Amino acid sequence: MDVNKNQSRSAGGAHGIAGQFVASQQVYDLETRNIFSSHWFYVARTEELNPESDCLPIRFENQGLFLTRDEAGAVRAFRNFCRHRGSELVNEGNCGSLGKRIRCPYHAWTYDRTGKLVSAPNMADVNTFRSEDNGLVEIACESYAGFLWINFAPKQTLREWLRPIADRFEDWDVASLQIAHEIRYRIAANWKLIFQNYSECYHCPTVHPMLNRLTPYRGASNDLKAGPILGGPMCLSEDSETMSSNGKFAGLPISGLSSSQARSVHYLTIFPTMFLSLHPDYVLIHRLERIDKGNTQVVCQFLFHPDSIRQPGFDPAQAIEFWDLTNRQDWEVCELAQIGMSDPAYVPGPYSNLESVVAAFDRHYLETLG
Amino acid sequence: MDVNKNQSRSAGGAHGIAGQFVASQQVYDLETRNIFSSHWFYVARTEELNPESDCLPIRFENQGLFLTRDEAGAVRAFRNFCRHRGSELVNEGNCGSLGKRIRCPYHAWTYDRTGKLVSAPNMADVNTFRSEDNGLVEIACESYAGFLWINFAPKQTLREWLRPIADRFEDWDVASLQIAHEIRYRIAANWKLIFQNYSECYHCPTVHPMLNRLTPYRGASNDLKAGPILGGPMCLSEDSETMSSNGKFAGLPISGLSSSQARSVHYLTIFPTMFLSLHPDYVLIHRLERIDKGNTQVVCQFLFHPDSIRQPGFDPAQAIEFWDLTNRQDWEVCELAQIGMSDPAYVPGPYSNLESVVAAFDRHYLETLG
Amino acid sequence: MDVNKNQSRSAGGAHGIAGQFVASQQVYDLETRNIFSSHWFYVARTEELNPESDCLPIRFENQGLFLTRDEAGAVRAFRNFCRHRGSELVNEGNCGSLGKRIRCPYHAWTYDRTGKLVSAPNMADVNTFRSEDNGLVEIACESYAGFLWINFAPKQTLREWLRPIADRFEDWDVASLQIAHEIRYRIAANWKLIFQNYSECYHCPTVHPMLNRLTPYRGASNDLKAGPILGGPMCLSEDSETMSSNGKFAGLPISGLSSSQARSVHYLTIFPTMFLSLHPDYVLIHRLERIDKGNTQVVCQFLFHPDSIRQPGFDPAQAIEFWDLTNRQDWEVCELAQIGMSDPAYVPGPYSNLESVVAAFDRHYLETLG
Repeated sequence: MDVNKNQSRSAGGAHGIAGQFVASQQVYDLETRNIFSSHWFYVARTEELNPESDCLPIRFENQGLFLTRDEAGAVRAFRNFCRHRGSELVNEGNCGSLGKRIRCPYHAWTYDRTGKLVSAPNMADVNTFRSEDNGLVEIACESYAGFLWINFAPKQTLREWLRPIADRFEDWDVASLQIAHEIRYRIAANWKLIFQNYSECYHCPTVHPMLNRLTPYRGASNDLKAGPILGGPMCLSEDSETMSSNGKFAGLPISGLSSSQARSVHYLTIFPTMFLSLHPDYVLIHRLERIDKGNTQVVCQFLFHPDSIRQPGFDPAQAIEFWDLTNRQDWEVCELAQIGMSDPAYVPGPYSNLESVVAAFDRHYLETLG
Repeated sequence: MDVNKNQSRSAGGAHGIAGQFVASQQVYDLETRNIFSSHWFYVARTEELNPESDCLPIRFENQGLFLTRDEAGAVRAFRNFCRHRGSELVNEGNCGSLGKRIRCPYHAWTYDRTGKLVSAPNMADVNTFRSEDNGLVEIACESYAGFLWINFAPKQTLREWLRPIADRFEDWDVASLQIAHEIRYRIAANWKLIFQNYSECYHCPTVHPMLNRLTPYRGASNDLKAGPILGGPMCLSEDSETMSSNGKFAGLPISGLSSSQARSVHYLTIFPTMFLSLHPDYVLIHRLERIDKGNTQVVCQFLFHPDSIRQPGFDPAQAIEFWDLTNRQDWEVCELAQIGMSDPAYVPGPYSNLESVVAAFDRHYLETLG
Repeated sequence: MDVNKNQSRSAGGAHGIAGQFVASQQVYDLETRNIFSSHWFYVARTEELNPESDCLPIRFENQGLFLTRDEAGAVRAFRNFCRHRGSELVNEGNCGSLGKRIRCPYHAWTYDRTGKLVSAPNMADVNTFRSEDNGLVEIACESYAGFLWINFAPKQTLREWLRPIADRFEDWDVASLQIAHEIRYRIAANWKLIFQNYSECYHCPTVHPMLNRLTPYRGASNDLKAGPILGGPMCLSEDSETMSSNGKFAGLPISGLSSSQARSVHYLTIFPTMFLSLHPDYVLIHRLERIDKGNTQVVCQFLFHPDSIRQPGFDPAQAIEFWDLTNRQDWEVCELAQIGMSDPAYVPGPYSNLESVVAAFDRHYLETLG
């Protein structure tokens, strides 16, 4: 990794995206059709399934789904409605007390964990009724490195999709990691402003004095420069072990990292809802969930190795505190940008070369939006 | 009444209505034009007029109206705006202190109880002004069995409209009954889901264990099977006197009922806003008010005979408690159905034969929607 | 001033405006384009600039602006977004601590008080970048009689615009006055209903018994009868000195007024957002801000001469209390009119001759709306 690599970066004279992309309902609806209907989306870690029932109700955009493990142990995703009159089947209220089968609370139609309708009272005398026509509607669901992903219309396998960073999932042994902490934020900004913000450290000297001390912004480089997965490493300063309030490790260093991996943080974005921040001792996940054109929920998860978590006195507070502060600093400027860009008179400005990945994100976004 | 009648019921292989009917604003607006502008709507019991002023302001959909009794004693309905600058005339604040005439609070234009403009200060010198052009806008309003009904565009008289159940109004002497209790609910479900829920007892074993003990679901039959008024009786179980938490009468049995009427509950729906549940000792009314496509207000009124209410120790609590519990159980599954049916991927499922009246409601609804 | 002038007033048989003008989103949007984009709008008194920074962030309709004084002392108005990524630049949080220059909180682009971009880190190596293309977007801003006004597309100078009442600004020495008190109201009524209400005293006997005692409604006349500025004087009754709860002066009489000016109150409306009420001893300002079609914010400011304010024991409470009561009486009937006019069945009624200025407002509004 060449810390001067950024000198050769260029945004190619690109300008930002127009205000309509964060303020127009039409654009939002177009995104629904062309972006949020056909990608692999990370929705939960495997460990988040309810331990009593191996189920988890989730909402993705305006759609209700639930995840469940079948008898063969595979996790499957189903539309969360009964095939009879449409009742929601699994919710937080009943998730812990589901039995082997999923019974609709309205008229007791009952499904097994593969989605097959196994019982429907009083339907025997309906001539045209066939159980096999009325199974649950299934959605593609795959597991990778401990993450569960869904896809409404898969064009490639999850493994193909993640190939550009497969080595990193492996190097950091992400499959073994566990959630030590989770924070949820509601941000009054369009999801793309959060992507753009994560994709450059041009703002770091102004917005993040503490972060900029741990990883000076000129030590950022990018090895993934185009396409749906973008980003690269930033060098830790000499006196910093990891990103944390005191600059010290918050967990045991992850074993098997190369010497440069052990001295840097990799910042990766997976279009359109996930950030992956690989630290020497932990992995930070941002999962973005659109609320509406001007609001986004971000779920932040801190993953540590079970060896760390099991250690007596394990305390990730310095890492959590650091990222919570950094996140809030970021949300503040994202919200300021949302306000200004929503002004009907806003005209996009020119990017600096430090914003080359922002420009790459914009290009991929516009292509995908069609 | 044949308790096995339900064996011969059939939904004819019908399927439910599509998700758009509970989730689309266009459908909601079409309903406004084609359904909620031209039916007889129950809006208040006569006894609900303010005793001081014989007036009552009401809102129906997004329109303000007020009811008032004229000097001949007839109840009339008027648009609740002044013909000058449009001020609302009657509201909860002033309803109790209105005099014989309705005076606008803005510029003091004054109307009598037939809607005639009887005074308009400073208008005498306006050449083109004529009092008779500026009376209140009247809406058809008729009284039946103690209920007040309005209609913006009547195609038939109220009496014709209610003819299919005229005998039942008479048998239960509904005109004499009085409101002993009222409960208001706000339900996160489209009004039609509440209609469909009331129209079948297929869900009773699952949702209403207590109700199902008092009136086992297979004892339901329907003598009104098509058109705007639907429903029929359910047999009380041997050890139940009425629908109440302890199964005992909550009021004096209504006199003059036939022996089968005295041993059953009649469940009737009057399209598109009223349910009528005739018990041996009381009448339960549900009045539905659309709030928006996903929300409905239901006003529940418990009507008892004045002889019951006057009795020392009259206590309808067991009936109220029973129906409040049953209602809440119903609202819960209606809300689950609203969630699932709103999912863009929802496809309607097949009806059982126990849902024949639901299918009849759907058919009448779709016909009326046009 | 002839107190009988009103006898010769006429609304010419005009009727009110249709309900859509207060209830339709299309009309609201048309107003945005044709009315609220091209007038002089009073936005702040000069004294309202932050004393630490000489800046003031304001929102006008859905647009963010900030006012700032340049080194030559002139007040300027700028769009409140950075030319780089659109961040809002000035807000209540940072307004008091701005230095000579305006620095963007996101990437530190920095502007001087004339809007010139004077510093943009890391932009030197972007070939196509030129500072002079990236200055702040300026809006016309002029000062008159101590009021600051903005205009997005001026067709005439502020001085020309205000010419019809220039003498009154001068007679009352409005430039010297200072804000002694401010009240903000949120009213559930369209802005035009507030204009119409202020434009006639036909409602005064019914709505304002106290006001009507101080200035009987038949003592109203109008010397500005057409166009964007409308209104005229009302005579004070013999035993009243000014408009106040006790009828006594709330401040020192403004010196230099003519004897008729000293015995009357001038009520003027400046289309489309300002009312000016000139009293013998103070000036009352109403500034209207649209929130949406059914809601308006009104900012009321009480201006007194510094000689009054400096007086030991200066107490404007009787004037404030009087107008707060009168305002609330007005908002109540405006809200009733909003309710009634929003009814789809509403049909406009005829104006009395006492509503000639309301009719003149309507005519000017409809012309301007196009």
